[in-house]
Amino acid sequence: MKPYKELDKQELLALKDTLEKEFEVTKGKGMRLNIARGKPDFNQLDLSMPMMDEINSKSDMRTLLGNDTRTYGDLDGIGECRRLMAAMMSVEKDNVVICGNSSLNIMYDTVSRSVTQGVNGHTPWCKLDEVKFLCPVPGYDRHFKITEYFGIEMINIPLYEDGPDMDLVEKHVNNDPAVKGIWCVPKYSNPTGISYSDETVRRFANLRPAAPDFRIYWDNAYSLHHLYPDNRDEILSIKEECDKAGNPDMYYIFSSTSKISFPGSGISAIASSPANVKHILHQMSIQTIGHDKINQLRHARFFKDFAGLQAHMDKHAELMRPKFELVADTLEKELGGLDIGVCTRPRGGYFISFDSMPGCAIDIVAKCKELGLILTEAGASYPYGKDPQDTNIRIAPTFPELPELKEAVLAFALCVKLVSVNKLLRENN
Amino acid sequence: MKPYKELDKQELLALKDTLEKEFEVTKGKGMRLNIARGKPDFNQLDLSMPMMDEINSKSDMRTLLGNDTRTYGDLDGIGECRRLMAAMMSVEKDNVVICGNSSLNIMYDTVSRSVTQGVNGHTPWCKLDEVKFLCPVPGYDRHFKITEYFGIEMINIPLYEDGPDMDLVEKHVNNDPAVKGIWCVPKYSNPTGISYSDETVRRFANLRPAAPDFRIYWDNAYSLHHLYPDNRDEILSIKEECDKAGNPDMYYIFSSTSKISFPGSGISAIASSPANVKHILHQMSIQTIGHDKINQLRHARFFKDFAGLQAHMDKHAELMRPKFELVADTLEKELGGLDIGVCTRPRGGYFISFDSMPGCAIDIVAKCKELGLILTEAGASYPYGKDPQDTNIRIAPTFPELPELKEAVLAFALCVKLVSVNKLLRENN
Repeated sequence: MKPYKELDKQELLALKDTLEKEFEVTKGKGMRLNIARGKPDFNQLDLSMPMMDEINSKSDMRTLLGNDTRTYGDLDGIGECRRLMAAMMSVEKDNVVICGNSSLNIMYDTVSRSVTQGVNGHTPWCKLDEVKFLCPVPGYDRHFKITEYFGIEMINIPLYEDGPDMDLVEKHVNNDPAVKGIWCVPKYSNPTGISYSDETVRRFANLRPAAPDFRIYWDNAYSLHHLYPDNRDEILSIKEECDKAGNPDMYYIFSSTSKISFPGSGISAIASSPANVKHILHQMSIQTIGHDKINQLRHARFFKDFAGLQAHMDKHAELMRPKFELVADTLEKELGGLDIGVCTRPRGGYFISFDSMPGCAIDIVAKCKELGLILTEAGASYPYGKDPQDTNIRIAPTFPELPELKEAVLAFALCVKLVSVNKLLRENN
Repeated sequence: MKPYKELDKQELLALKDTLEKEFEVTKGKGMRLNIARGKPDFNQLDLSMPMMDEINSKSDMRTLLGNDTRTYGDLDGIGECRRLMAAMMSVEKDNVVICGNSSLNIMYDTVSRSVTQGVNGHTPWCKLDEVKFLCPVPGYDRHFKITEYFGIEMINIPLYEDGPDMDLVEKHVNNDPAVKGIWCVPKYSNPTGISYSDETVRRFANLRPAAPDFRIYWDNAYSLHHLYPDNRDEILSIKEECDKAGNPDMYYIFSSTSKISFPGSGISAIASSPANVKHILHQMSIQTIGHDKINQLRHARFFKDFAGLQAHMDKHAELMRPKFELVADTLEKELGGLDIGVCTRPRGGYFISFDSMPGCAIDIVAKCKELGLILTEAGASYPYGKDPQDTNIRIAPTFPELPELKEAVLAFALCVKLVSVNKLLRENN
């Protein structure tokens, strides 16, 4: 088939007619599918169920250092868990503070603390007229919701194959003292799946911020989430590069096992310099009596060490790979050559990112909804939910079983075609 | 023995000499004991260990409504856990939001949210020149640390046998729009162990705050923590009384199982009106993907219902009662008639509160430290750590075994005597 843009009006009208009939047939099937959020499937969850046997009523509940995990103490987390997360985060154990069940909560707390208390003794952001964050786009909607909630101005930065537009990042960070942070998902990014190149990481580490309280919010959520065990992306350690560049306090690394063990019942952690960790722990000493150490013990005993984590994630990869390939293959087959949209083929992470023709994403998502297929809201991957080109759609292929997923992708492709034809017809008039 | 105050200088000097010798002997024993924090003992923790068998790798992980606890969803908590906590908090299930492992963290978040976002649409406190909290004293140090951390001015309110000085509370709350909250531990209060009378609760519910965003911070931490199963304190439901008084949004109730199951690995909850819950859930939707539902399931299955919780707490009472009685009996025996201090005899909670002669508490705590006995810092039960009379000392009798506890209390009594004699001698000069 030739590109839609080369079709004349008659051809487009004929195509529209065919597609609309197909749409009605699909609608008649009464599909009910949700591929909006990155949600593990049941087989993935089952991989971690043996963890539940690590602790029973007869277990020794003490850490390797002999501390009872059932009571107060170890505010920064139990040693074996800090060691485990340190390996995962490419830092030392002393850089790590284990937190609750959600790294999102740590990011929220980190921003919230900066708003009310300031960063390491600097002016609290609530006392400033202007606070800005850089937001590589498309990006993670929940990052943007946090900064929006606190009234922080967000600035879009294009995200390329090797990371954010670093010329633009440097321009903003190095010149504007109101720029206090940047949201990064450096590996298998949400939603495009790209990983930052070594040069990108080094340019981050070598920023010379106009604001002394500028920090890089390094959400390494998918550090172990490869699809191809023999072809993994590797990124440089932001901690090591910042240390080398003389910017030891410039980063906060966030991580969790939400998509390794259980979403909502995993372990999360923040890693940073000793100076930053000191401030974090001071806040925590006001905020909490400490996080759930029994769950930390459960995780540490189940995964044992970094190799254990990696072996576990290889099993995840086996389950996930066919789903990602199904989506990318199907979209290529359905849309290839039509020039009405492209999807990414990530080597890891949780999402496939689709870019439609400009001005079509909202309509595609709406059309899919008519068919009973729920996608992430169009625009969600942009600050304020506003995709300036209205092109980006995030597809989360992990949850459905393969046959359902196939059905969903075909329905999606159909909607892309139909919306694109309508768009071209409007432009034709 | 007659009251120290009736001793003349010679008698005091002789007494001082005897006590100092006794002090040196005790010091020589090299005691190492800590009764600073309300920490359950190992037998108490063991009571909850069977909970660990409620969930294993073969368990059905679904809630009664069929939701999988291993993945995202149920932001407000799983139904069975909300029901359980609702019974404990004397509210309905729909009033309850289950949170993480620590009610302190909910209180922190509640204050923090009020500072940055405001209460239900009212001006964020960070935009106000003056924000004040009322603090019944002596009270819980960690409450005061939260309000201090956020720069909120704290006003001492005397706490009597039946609750705070309500005339004073009404005067401040009903007249000063800067007064935004009051910290309450309404049952078996920390540290004095008193419970609020029905009249006190009703006067709370009938406040007519000058500030529309005034809230009662009702930390019902010890609602089930009686020492005498046949002689329990009961307090009115602040929710029901506020509803009756036409003040449905005026309270936040906080609770947790920290001292029922495991400190740090329990379940916490906040309960409030539908309007307040809506704002809490909105914040939570920004802050987290949800709390640990597997731990909620573990708790719900273990305790089953309110009767299960109560039966469990009767077992705690058996373990705790001898410790509380030992402390009170020993202090009465050692100090009775000397008129140099009095201790409470609580019917529940986690603490015994001791009041020395004015100007002695700091010195007593320091003397104890010389003997290797760590007490809660003097003044901790007052805002800013400043006890105006320097009299109050909080004793946490729960953790040590009885023989150790006896040793500790004798050492404490010795220090009280010595410091009191020294004080009287100084006054004599």
